[in-house]
Amino acid sequence: MPTHTIKSIKAPTVQLLLTGNELMTGDIVDSNSAMIADLLKDIGLGVTRKVTVADELALLVSEITYMASTSDILIINGGLGPTVDDLTAQALALATGVELKQHPQALTHLTQWAERRGAELNTPNLKQTILPSDCHIIANKNGSAVGFFVRYKHCDIYCTPGVPHELKTMLSEEIIPQITKNLPANLSSDITRLQVFGIGESSLQKMIDEQLPDWPSEIDLGFRAGLPLLEVKLTTNSQKGLTLKAPWQKKLVKVLGDHVVAEIHGKPKSLAEHLLEQLQQQKIKVTTAESCTGGLIASKLTEISGSSMNFEAGFVTYSNEMKTKMLDVPQSLLAQHGAVSEAVVVAMAKGALLKSNADLAIAVSGVAGPNGGSEEKPVGTVWLAWGSIDNIQTVCLLLPYKRQQFQQFVAAVGLDLLRRYQQNLTSIPNYIIERSFPTK
Amino acid sequence: MPTHTIKSIKAPTVQLLLTGNELMTGDIVDSNSAMIADLLKDIGLGVTRKVTVADELALLVSEITYMASTSDILIINGGLGPTVDDLTAQALALATGVELKQHPQALTHLTQWAERRGAELNTPNLKQTILPSDCHIIANKNGSAVGFFVRYKHCDIYCTPGVPHELKTMLSEEIIPQITKNLPANLSSDITRLQVFGIGESSLQKMIDEQLPDWPSEIDLGFRAGLPLLEVKLTTNSQKGLTLKAPWQKKLVKVLGDHVVAEIHGKPKSLAEHLLEQLQQQKIKVTTAESCTGGLIASKLTEISGSSMNFEAGFVTYSNEMKTKMLDVPQSLLAQHGAVSEAVVVAMAKGALLKSNADLAIAVSGVAGPNGGSEEKPVGTVWLAWGSIDNIQTVCLLLPYKRQQFQQFVAAVGLDLLRRYQQNLTSIPNYIIERSFPTK
Repeated sequence: MPTHTIKSIKAPTVQLLLTGNELMTGDIVDSNSAMIADLLKDIGLGVTRKVTVADELALLVSEITYMASTSDILIINGGLGPTVDDLTAQALALATGVELKQHPQALTHLTQWAERRGAELNTPNLKQTILPSDCHIIANKNGSAVGFFVRYKHCDIYCTPGVPHELKTMLSEEIIPQITKNLPANLSSDITRLQVFGIGESSLQKMIDEQLPDWPSEIDLGFRAGLPLLEVKLTTNSQKGLTLKAPWQKKLVKVLGDHVVAEIHGKPKSLAEHLLEQLQQQKIKVTTAESCTGGLIASKLTEISGSSMNFEAGFVTYSNEMKTKMLDVPQSLLAQHGAVSEAVVVAMAKGALLKSNADLAIAVSGVAGPNGGSEEKPVGTVWLAWGSIDNIQTVCLLLPYKRQQFQQFVAAVGLDLLRRYQQNLTSIPNYIIERSFPTK
Repeated sequence: MPTHTIKSIKAPTVQLLLTGNELMTGDIVDSNSAMIADLLKDIGLGVTRKVTVADELALLVSEITYMASTSDILIINGGLGPTVDDLTAQALALATGVELKQHPQALTHLTQWAERRGAELNTPNLKQTILPSDCHIIANKNGSAVGFFVRYKHCDIYCTPGVPHELKTMLSEEIIPQITKNLPANLSSDITRLQVFGIGESSLQKMIDEQLPDWPSEIDLGFRAGLPLLEVKLTTNSQKGLTLKAPWQKKLVKVLGDHVVAEIHGKPKSLAEHLLEQLQQQKIKVTTAESCTGGLIASKLTEISGSSMNFEAGFVTYSNEMKTKMLDVPQSLLAQHGAVSEAVVVAMAKGALLKSNADLAIAVSGVAGPNGGSEEKPVGTVWLAWGSIDNIQTVCLLLPYKRQQFQQFVAAVGLDLLRRYQQNLTSIPNYIIERSFPTK
């Protein structure tokens, strides 16, 4: 790919063209374009328009022609495969008025790819080497189809594979560096993410508007609503933004308080991962005693590689009898207070600590619904108990979520309460302020 | 909305226009268009082209103008909200050359919506009632923004909300029935789904090609690769197809054998849901003893409402010591065979049966990785034991998946083995044939 400098000091306009029948039928959710947009955003570029069409030659030619004339960068995704419905090379050649020919570099790639697999090249495979005559090859580490680059009039056209992990590597290692090299210098970006738990997107927006009204325009604030962790992304594209960032990030963290689980530059982590890192440092073992979450907290912990260092046992005690049998919860407590009660979750947590080798426990019992609620304990009620044997804390929440979302949220709250406990955080989290039950 | 008949006997062409900055930034993966395409497919319609743009008025007007002139049906999604960047109504009015005015039906809807929430209407809210003067209102059961319909030249334009659950209800209850009413009679569809576990998409395609080479073109076959259940969709749009369907569906089920978990007309169900329905009929209680899946099987079961009828207890025994302490697995067995062994999973299953009130158990122990593998027991090895106290069966698999996918797949295999056990199915599932370890 030739290096060049885009003349305009403005950010170049980027469009995406996605091709594939499977994208039109509803059988596949397109995650590629979000991946592309996300990586472009990291270098300060936005996508202005995205078109998705089925694998039809005439459609593709007409879209390419129009899109190349209205953007600085056009990324075409899909249609590089070996079958007859893969038409990107052919369409691009027609749209830009060049011949198709076999590209020696693509042939070498394909031959080596087949050799590594002990496979023979067949005619459909060879189709992947027939490309527009003036194109530059883009390496594909993970698949048989190379990508390719063409400059047509004022537009840089990148053709990329539809398979997500092939696309991801090609973007990260080849295309994004290439685009970055050509960008005006003032567009390079610096990104930090705050992982936040327990504040909703709109509350968070309101807190920032009210408490940091003069947030500098040099720092772009983005939100990614996630379950359970919300992500706040701070992006700067200028020297001034970079200078302003440290103090403003500090102000923002102060506003959000202990709801900030982590400030990171790299890959986001899950709540369980953050907790386990902490427990590993502190050499603390944790156990779970779950009723309404039915094993979900244990499975969130054991999802993480290396969790066996800090987790040995979990108890899923779904019935009253099993609470007694597995965790020695006294029958009298269950009879007097019911399974969803402070006394019972405390007994569950203590039982789990005594029956396991753990230093720290989380116990939950609640009404996940849709059935089983009562006036006193409506659907959505949950008692949590957590801590070490000599210091067990409790809370009761009433959550407005349906069964599976309720279970996911309770599991996240459980992990967050353990995180706060181990960090000796004393502030009251937003979800307790908003959802305490009975309302205090 | 007026009823009319589309003249052409051909299926009408459908295009989608999606609007929203969040769709362009990579912060959100667009699942709405797959939902729309999927529901349209159910009535025999395909989407030919899909355009996504940011919230910019000029862009929207130009896209609407072009798309309305090149399709019979245009579905616009997003941009109905109360904020300044919600521009659909304004853009549609400009593109079709009509005035905007307050629509009384939209105002009534909004007033009632606010009343139910004890909220007051503010100016931003009222913006949602200002719509193209000639439009027809489409009810929105779940949100503040009504949808609306406009016929412009030969195109039926439906404007829909971006919030997924609002969109889904509006499509299913209002728009799809309306479009169906206007369809040529020969396009109405009949759909059956086979839920399949244990065969990959390409193996399945091969089985059908080889064993049912003369599959009739009147029955459209669609696949939806899902984890863990694969869905095979049989769609017919003609009387002839309908007649052919019953016998061919029977042939297909015969080819796929016991891998077919269910043949359904309505909403797909999870493996756990199918299993629990069966256990409920048979009045059987199940328990879980999990090492490498760490509570995932228990959480899949307890995700289902009513699972407490058939599930009382689950044991997450992640360390050797806890296998002994919680499930009475003899230390000598662990020392002699290791935790990932037939003897240990059998002892875990027996221990879980004896410690719980259950009739049926599933026990798993494996090497989820990425660490902990050995030459004899590489990463991906898993032993499963299942059955009742007097009839425990076992299998060892070697799975080529990374940690979390490994855990998900093992959990699904566990549930499937229980399903097969309770149904007295004696055929050997594909995943055992392909993944047995050591290879037999």
